[in-house]
Amino acid sequence: MLSKSHPRYESLVLRDKIVKASKAGYLADSAMIAHGRGEAFDYLLGEKTTLPAKRAMYVTVAIMLLSKNPVISVNGNTVALAIDEIIEFAREIDAKIEINLFYRTDDRVNKIAKLFYDRDYPEILGTNNDEMMHINEIKNPRASASKNGIYSADTVLVPLEDGDRAEILSRSGKNTITIDLNPLSRTSKMSDVSIVDNLVRAIPFMTKIARDLKLQDEELLREIIEEFDNDINLKESLELFKIKEEVK
Amino acid sequence: MLSKSHPRYESLVLRDKIVKASKAGYLADSAMIAHGRGEAFDYLLGEKTTLPAKRAMYVTVAIMLLSKNPVISVNGNTVALAIDEIIEFAREIDAKIEINLFYRTDDRVNKIAKLFYDRDYPEILGTNNDEMMHINEIKNPRASASKNGIYSADTVLVPLEDGDRAEILSRSGKNTITIDLNPLSRTSKMSDVSIVDNLVRAIPFMTKIARDLKLQDEELLREIIEEFDNDINLKESLELFKIKEEVK
Repeated sequence: MLSKSHPRYESLVLRDKIVKASKAGYLADSAMIAHGRGEAFDYLLGEKTTLPAKRAMYVTVAIMLLSKNPVISVNGNTVALAIDEIIEFAREIDAKIEINLFYRTDDRVNKIAKLFYDRDYPEILGTNNDEMMHINEIKNPRASASKNGIYSADTVLVPLEDGDRAEILSRSGKNTITIDLNPLSRTSKMSDVSIVDNLVRAIPFMTKIARDLKLQDEELLREIIEEFDNDINLKESLELFKIKEEVK
Repeated sequence: MLSKSHPRYESLVLRDKIVKASKAGYLADSAMIAHGRGEAFDYLLGEKTTLPAKRAMYVTVAIMLLSKNPVISVNGNTVALAIDEIIEFAREIDAKIEINLFYRTDDRVNKIAKLFYDRDYPEILGTNNDEMMHINEIKNPRASASKNGIYSADTVLVPLEDGDRAEILSRSGKNTITIDLNPLSRTSKMSDVSIVDNLVRAIPFMTKIARDLKLQDEELLREIIEEFDNDINLKESLELFKIKEEVK
């Protein structure tokens, strides 16, 4: 049993969730490696949500509340780490959720869909019964999207996304919002809004923001969005990484 | 097929080796996550061997050449990434190699031992037939060691090691040398010599150093060792991480 007093307790709990998901068979081969990369960046960030991350989250919620068809894209790692939090957030902002796997197999999709059904979330998109299209007719699995979900979405929130896919989404004219702990990744650079944070902190935080912003005037939401500059915000995120901690 | 022109080709080749080793069943559950952490740190290091790393490698080779019973400890990730390079280095400096797994199972040990037998290296230690002892009578799997290997070694090189184990080795009075891409890790801090580099670059580099230093006077080797300060060297390693790269 892992002790709560272990200095790396939170991180080890997440690691355990990823290991279990891998054993359950719904992660891609290199999903655990991707998780490890995220762990390292979060460690350097001090495992805290930064001010630029919070700013990006306010903008994200404002955009999603003003969108006609906002969709949250989920992959295996996202589901393993935060399925309950994703469902709660989606309900709060009235967004759809779509399973969108970079290495898509029917088996992995079915396993992930079942996790949503088990949580009384039958409206999950991107299942094997769903009608899948290709964004901008790009005949590439990275461009596949549910007809009623990402394909017709005006805004897509994609936690833990691949850079190529983030680029396709952003070029298609959709508001593309990513959650990625690496501020230097192609995903972060390609997105319209880049949240440099751990998604297990970011998603519940955005649910709280949504409860507030839903009560505000639309004009305020537009202002929040207009004042935001993703390039400047990414630079600020980058400056908060503390690789230069004192070595004893 | 992965193209050699891919900007992350080298990194993806290593990732592929780890994924294959995981499928072959000789990695611990969270070994891929550990690899991902290393990937992130190597990325920040620019995937280059730094001057402080080279300095630590000269010291390592000097210590190992002057040692009576130097042993290289290998775990699943080390074997997956660099088994041939490890064997070549061990032969060059006349060191033993011992399988030492943090989460030891007979099956994983057998699989790793077979990889050494397949490479005509029957003298591999730490197998299931080998006599295992506990360092300083510590009844903890982290303290287990082959009687003729790490248990009686004066110098142990442990690539990719756990912090607790590095601490046990160092406290036992053995020269403890680690290869770890995170200069802030407990492993790096606990070791007598910390090589902050990717082991796939470090091991072949040390083989070359050994060919040179073997021809030198012992007095020179002693000087190299005496001039070295691991704390100062770790600080220099740390300063070379480039998290502040310009975001376009």
